[in-house]
Amino acid sequence: MTESKGLTINDVARKCGLSRSTVSRVINNHPYVAKEKKEAVLKAMEELGYKPNSVAQQLRSNKTHAIAVLVPRITNPFYSRLIEKMETEASLLGYQIIICQTRYSKEREVDYLDMLRSRKVDGVILTSIQNDWKDIETYLQYGPIVMCNEFDDQATIPSIRVNQMDGSYLGTKHLIEQGHKKIAYCKGGTKSNIGKKRREGFNKALKEYNLSSVNDVVLTNAFSIEDGKRIFHELPEDITAVFTGGDEVAVGIIFEARENRVKIPEQLAVIGFDNQVISELINPSITTINQPIEEVASKTMEVMIQKLESDKPSNIKEIYEFPVKLIVRQSTVLE
Amino acid sequence: MTESKGLTINDVARKCGLSRSTVSRVINNHPYVAKEKKEAVLKAMEELGYKPNSVAQQLRSNKTHAIAVLVPRITNPFYSRLIEKMETEASLLGYQIIICQTRYSKEREVDYLDMLRSRKVDGVILTSIQNDWKDIETYLQYGPIVMCNEFDDQATIPSIRVNQMDGSYLGTKHLIEQGHKKIAYCKGGTKSNIGKKRREGFNKALKEYNLSSVNDVVLTNAFSIEDGKRIFHELPEDITAVFTGGDEVAVGIIFEARENRVKIPEQLAVIGFDNQVISELINPSITTINQPIEEVASKTMEVMIQKLESDKPSNIKEIYEFPVKLIVRQSTVLE
Repeated sequence: MTESKGLTINDVARKCGLSRSTVSRVINNHPYVAKEKKEAVLKAMEELGYKPNSVAQQLRSNKTHAIAVLVPRITNPFYSRLIEKMETEASLLGYQIIICQTRYSKEREVDYLDMLRSRKVDGVILTSIQNDWKDIETYLQYGPIVMCNEFDDQATIPSIRVNQMDGSYLGTKHLIEQGHKKIAYCKGGTKSNIGKKRREGFNKALKEYNLSSVNDVVLTNAFSIEDGKRIFHELPEDITAVFTGGDEVAVGIIFEARENRVKIPEQLAVIGFDNQVISELINPSITTINQPIEEVASKTMEVMIQKLESDKPSNIKEIYEFPVKLIVRQSTVLE
Repeated sequence: MTESKGLTINDVARKCGLSRSTVSRVINNHPYVAKEKKEAVLKAMEELGYKPNSVAQQLRSNKTHAIAVLVPRITNPFYSRLIEKMETEASLLGYQIIICQTRYSKEREVDYLDMLRSRKVDGVILTSIQNDWKDIETYLQYGPIVMCNEFDDQATIPSIRVNQMDGSYLGTKHLIEQGHKKIAYCKGGTKSNIGKKRREGFNKALKEYNLSSVNDVVLTNAFSIEDGKRIFHELPEDITAVFTGGDEVAVGIIFEARENRVKIPEQLAVIGFDNQVISELINPSITTINQPIEEVASKTMEVMIQKLESDKPSNIKEIYEFPVKLIVRQSTVLE
């Protein structure tokens, strides 16, 4: 942040024994700081001779110190874990997180992006994308936008994501190595680039084992536990394994299989995605793909705050891609 | 909302075949309405002779049409289900929901309440309470505050809640009827009025069966699955049942019991709270207390929007209390 005599906000924090966040709040005249803390910070600043750059400070004082994070559904633990970590990082740096649920609606996504224009927030993080890039791009003039998880190849902004293609490739390869030849593929929305990459990974694995021609069962609208229950009944007889694209869908399939006395993995192997808490707790536990959610969230917040605290707007594409990992459990392998 | 000639916004919606929400957006000049829809609404208004009250409209045009919902943690499915339903209701009426996670911090709660003062939102819904009522009350001058789930007896605002005392009473009585005499009690925070009422219900059941004197095992900081895992190891030898206060805590205890080959319910009976999806999916499934989350959320939003759309501030206490229900499953009763 601001500097004088080479001193930083960290030096002030160390001097008064309070957090960076508290120091930042005092400097920016944030409404809620306990009187004693405020005095301690001001005292430390005086003793060190630390003076926040006044121009930068004025610029900052127009700011809301709020960042909107748009997610499709907070009931999906993937998104709630992502937010949990983003919020921890943001609050360490004196920023507030505002969570906006789009429920996959183009209209709601634009309503929330509009918070940038009306100065309710300083920046927006998109974890899913409903609108075309050209419609999102117009909001860039009001503040930084960062993509996390979902991405758009045309977008000239930072995007932080995982190697989705590798995820589905590893998962599908694992199913094939267990002897499966007919594997059903579940997908969510149609516009998603995550979906596109995952499909590529699935196809890559099939191709490597010359199984492309026998695999054309695609189940759509796979998001929730309820969807998994429905999909169980839509599976053709000859399918022996399902790539679900999400642990919640896998949970739904496993639950319905249990009700219908179909044995997992003997009669049907199921692979999830995300390594959610429930994938370990359910019986049988679910083979899944782990995404480093905490690292992705931290990096996203780091990049966003860099953009907010630098005075020049940047219109370049930046990509940060994290690796994924296969976690083998009971839903695909007999113990 | 506004009326003319006895006509309401509903009549306009019916006339043009669009939702109340769309009509409300057009009337309030909300940024994102498709051109054709806007024209259809304006045409229907003209044909009906409907004129929104201009003073009320002007007043409303100062509004943000955003409502902040403060929750402690969105990773708790109780809160995410509550928000899911609130958002559905709000968007039908042309309002936007902004989700703010306090993570049980007094400071963050005040930061978010401050959004009322800085006009980022029109109203605030509190689902948990960290600060004293006198500190929250000062924000009432900037807009309505409604309590949902958690409550404060001093608060002169609407609160929508369930009969918490009945919940723990029914659960504890059920455990006693299964023959349990030494029942451990888990609790969350210390300030919570929910916690206080639940404890009263627990004690009431013990008293009815003359078991008060042998029950004094209280486990604290019981919020999450991880807490449940820890608590399992803190249970004294002679305890045969646990009132967990939450399905997540129950899940943690069951998971750890499984790892330690303790049979549920034979060696330890476990009762949850909330009837979360996971309580039905885990094996053994969890006996729990169902709260009518959807009804509570709807009522909360209905009351909030009434406050937002009436021009007079109201400083009276209103209480809406919903009933709860015991759901018996495998974690307390041998099949």
